[in-house]
Amino acid sequence: MPNWIYPNFEFRPKRPLFLCIISNTDTGKIPGLSAAGTTPELTDYTPGADAELVETNRIITMPELPEAPGGSPTPAIVTKAALNLTGVPSLFAASGLRKKPAVPYVELGGSAGNDIRKESAVPDARAIYENAANLGKKLARLSDCVFIGESIAGGTTTALAVLKALGYDANVSSSFATNPTGLKTQVVEEAMKRAGVRNGSLKSDPIRAVTELGDPMMPAALGLMRGLAGTKVMLAGGTQMAAVLALGKALGIEGDISIVTTKYIIEDKTASFREIVESVGRPYYYSDPGLENSKIPPVQIYAQGYVKEGVGMGGAALLAAIYGVEQRSLVEETDHVLLTVELPKK
Amino acid sequence: MPNWIYPNFEFRPKRPLFLCIISNTDTGKIPGLSAAGTTPELTDYTPGADAELVETNRIITMPELPEAPGGSPTPAIVTKAALNLTGVPSLFAASGLRKKPAVPYVELGGSAGNDIRKESAVPDARAIYENAANLGKKLARLSDCVFIGESIAGGTTTALAVLKALGYDANVSSSFATNPTGLKTQVVEEAMKRAGVRNGSLKSDPIRAVTELGDPMMPAALGLMRGLAGTKVMLAGGTQMAAVLALGKALGIEGDISIVTTKYIIEDKTASFREIVESVGRPYYYSDPGLENSKIPPVQIYAQGYVKEGVGMGGAALLAAIYGVEQRSLVEETDHVLLTVELPKK
Repeated sequence: MPNWIYPNFEFRPKRPLFLCIISNTDTGKIPGLSAAGTTPELTDYTPGADAELVETNRIITMPELPEAPGGSPTPAIVTKAALNLTGVPSLFAASGLRKKPAVPYVELGGSAGNDIRKESAVPDARAIYENAANLGKKLARLSDCVFIGESIAGGTTTALAVLKALGYDANVSSSFATNPTGLKTQVVEEAMKRAGVRNGSLKSDPIRAVTELGDPMMPAALGLMRGLAGTKVMLAGGTQMAAVLALGKALGIEGDISIVTTKYIIEDKTASFREIVESVGRPYYYSDPGLENSKIPPVQIYAQGYVKEGVGMGGAALLAAIYGVEQRSLVEETDHVLLTVELPKK
Repeated sequence: MPNWIYPNFEFRPKRPLFLCIISNTDTGKIPGLSAAGTTPELTDYTPGADAELVETNRIITMPELPEAPGGSPTPAIVTKAALNLTGVPSLFAASGLRKKPAVPYVELGGSAGNDIRKESAVPDARAIYENAANLGKKLARLSDCVFIGESIAGGTTTALAVLKALGYDANVSSSFATNPTGLKTQVVEEAMKRAGVRNGSLKSDPIRAVTELGDPMMPAALGLMRGLAGTKVMLAGGTQMAAVLALGKALGIEGDISIVTTKYIIEDKTASFREIVESVGRPYYYSDPGLENSKIPPVQIYAQGYVKEGVGMGGAALLAAIYGVEQRSLVEETDHVLLTVELPKK
């Protein structure tokens, strides 16, 4: 048994699928809130570029590799490495995505999410949810285990807002090493005031929580979860996916649903990943990608809490482990992906 | 063994997938050429509306049900009926599609095809081909038998042009009961002259044949065929898919590839479906949907040669047959789909 995933993971999928939802929200453009893109404007392009990297090892529609202001590259490099080593097929699904990737993806519709301080966040949440459920039903006929990751800048803030609306006393993670918790809390408070929502006041109306305070990734993940009933579902992400888990519980979505993340999220003392997941009552798993052993400093610092999660990195690493990949091989392949990724000519 | 598919079809797929490529070409807007849409302008909306009908039994983005000028409804109703009765999952893939459906679909990119008389038909054929191959590789990990249908108005004319460029002495079918062969031949001759192509002059350059004279459905189908190597592929269509088969042979694409169509195509004396397929050397199958037994006159006349094929109707009917559905049940379900489809409020 690989010693870098926790706890033991017994299930051996026959036809796993790695699905990743790519979305935008203007909440992610509030200065200082997200590290997924060096400038707020570039955050629109980050999810599509993540898809391009995973599908082709090439960045096509963004001028540079998506990275955090500190210079850490997108976690898509770890996901790509894990998928390279396992041959597990990936599929990106756009939900409220402004800048589309130049690789195949499933379109689930919807507009980019609004700044939650200013207006309803996802007016078309219901339509996205139904579309995603439709897709999930199909995939349930083809795959016996679907991982669902996400790439959306600003998603931890909308996760915090939704968790509060559902009544969770939660904190969320950040792609920054130092979590801007004060700013996040302020944004969430402003948004709740704008929407007339109090702590827990939407616990029996989760779709309204998404519509008012969430982001377009959420109804897509929820719809997929509902449609995939009968197939094992592994939500792959940190506190954003924990919020989806909480929303799914509030919606009464049943099935074999777990969550998988990275050791970096588990170790994040500013976030309450475990508390949320335990209170929802779903199993959680995490992988230790061992990135301190990378030869590339901006990758090494992942292990110090930069970036932490994203593009389903923790789940993809778990997949690699259950396929028998050694932790060291994953690190080497991650470095290789980063050193060989093709960037647009300047 | 069902007595309404020919010849006997022994294979029993475990995880079949019904995929349908939806595309536009301005060649389809040449007046008198295509019956897929009551006016040339509406042909842009027909493929998306077909997807909406199959996915939700609702027409959302088009003002009316796609139908031929004679009033026959889109063959999507037969496909929908067959998928309802079998539970086989469907997936629509847009390639050069101008008007996108309001249901989930895979985006393969590309622009709508140009009028082949005036300019290169599919300048981005190579990129679509690569994107589709990427998608095909993933689907090969999930499904053991992929049906590939099409919905593109004007596609038989581009099929004729490509077949001539490859050196086939062919005729193609039509969605009209009376095939406008004279007009098609004239359009193809003009296009070949414009592109400097003679009969057979592109037989060793099939991608150029698509780029100059084809439509965006073709590189998508070819890429899928290439990517799906290892999985059984059933091209579901008439002379358009026969042209794809011929292009695939010219490209050296190998694998377990067959073609399946309707009895109405086989009986079309103005088209050379069998001759093309036999000269490519791939097996063909056909189903008899028995639509003369419909209670609805515009559906009954399918059996007199109106519409004939489209949206993979012949392949979907074959799927129904191998799932044990009776011909009569398919007809009843087809009528039911047509009577219950939800149209936009006027």
